[in-house]
Amino acid sequence: MRDTQHPYVPRDLYLEDYVPVSLSQSIILVVYGASSLLHVSIIWFLSGRSPKITKVDRLLMCWWAFTGLTHMILEGYFVFSPEFYKEKMGFYLAEVWKEYSKGDSRYAARDAAIVAVEGITAVVEGPACILVLYAIATRKSYSYILQFAISLGQLYGTAVYFITSYLEGDNFSTNSLYYYEYYIGANASWVVIPMIVAIHCWRKICGAFEASSPKKTKIR
Amino acid sequence: MRDTQHPYVPRDLYLEDYVPVSLSQSIILVVYGASSLLHVSIIWFLSGRSPKITKVDRLLMCWWAFTGLTHMILEGYFVFSPEFYKEKMGFYLAEVWKEYSKGDSRYAARDAAIVAVEGITAVVEGPACILVLYAIATRKSYSYILQFAISLGQLYGTAVYFITSYLEGDNFSTNSLYYYEYYIGANASWVVIPMIVAIHCWRKICGAFEASSPKKTKIR
Repeated sequence: MRDTQHPYVPRDLYLEDYVPVSLSQSIILVVYGASSLLHVSIIWFLSGRSPKITKVDRLLMCWWAFTGLTHMILEGYFVFSPEFYKEKMGFYLAEVWKEYSKGDSRYAARDAAIVAVEGITAVVEGPACILVLYAIATRKSYSYILQFAISLGQLYGTAVYFITSYLEGDNFSTNSLYYYEYYIGANASWVVIPMIVAIHCWRKICGAFEASSPKKTKIR
Repeated sequence: MRDTQHPYVPRDLYLEDYVPVSLSQSIILVVYGASSLLHVSIIWFLSGRSPKITKVDRLLMCWWAFTGLTHMILEGYFVFSPEFYKEKMGFYLAEVWKEYSKGDSRYAARDAAIVAVEGITAVVEGPACILVLYAIATRKSYSYILQFAISLGQLYGTAVYFITSYLEGDNFSTNSLYYYEYYIGANASWVVIPMIVAIHCWRKICGAFEASSPKKTKIR
């Protein structure tokens, strides 16, 4: 008989040598929250030393630092660790994905669409987020278009993430608590914030065209 | 015994009531080529009547008309016709996808990642391509950012398309001829052209920022 001693749904998902999650949900969240807060605080403090950087840009830098590190470290670990669920030593990043898989077992099952989206996110978008920090701080002309590009990538990735799950029956959560807390809740930020950032950048870019050639270019 | 009287790979793919393709490859290609050429010619002719539209913009309008109609009609039909392989009347759009599935059987098999990407392409990107025609013709300030957004969406979609196939073993073609002709060949345009368009728009947008605030914004 196949071993299905894991907490994930669908129940017939076969995970050989699965090792249960050893850290509690609160410890996982506190470590993620505290380390994110630390990095965001450093960015907020450092960016505040330049009077040329506006408060909106400082807030954006905090977002890009947070999302960039999440993409590279958290999602990067997932992409290159197909056997994270076998991890025995309680390694934090493996624990995160063992826990998150309760909200979406396609992570443990290594669904191709998930790995593709996470791969693009970790390898392309992650480093690009860090480049944005430099672009905002040094007022590069490509700052808004780069932020727009990453935001659009995040929105496209989240769309593929939700649509594929819907098409496959939307039955990958251990229970409705994990469904709303992890699958919906944890991903909501990557729908709402990229949308706000994309609209902000769209307006700035249209504004630049209107300012650069007021007679040639019509206003929206 | 299960009926596997279809030409697709993997051979154990089960397609109930499959009806073989009735149009020849050359007829399918000629109809697609001729109708595309017709639309592109109309756009080239009409856009030429405005002396304000540059040759580059006229070429771009031809591309957007071609890709927009492909997204909405060809890909739109696929998205909303899960049973196209059962079509008995030789309906052209069904024939296209029966034929194309020889290069990638995930279309006939209705793979979730394919449907998600094609859905976003047909429903969001398709109409946006037609909006670009209007934006270029009327010199809207959002013209470049819209073209950039769609190009990036096309690139993201193609990336998910190829990466998911690779992750699942890259074994969805009837033979290597269809692999290179359909799977690689037909999709190559949607890698190369969106990349060129995206770079073109990126430069235009950076240029607008440099022109609008030459002292504030640093050159790349």
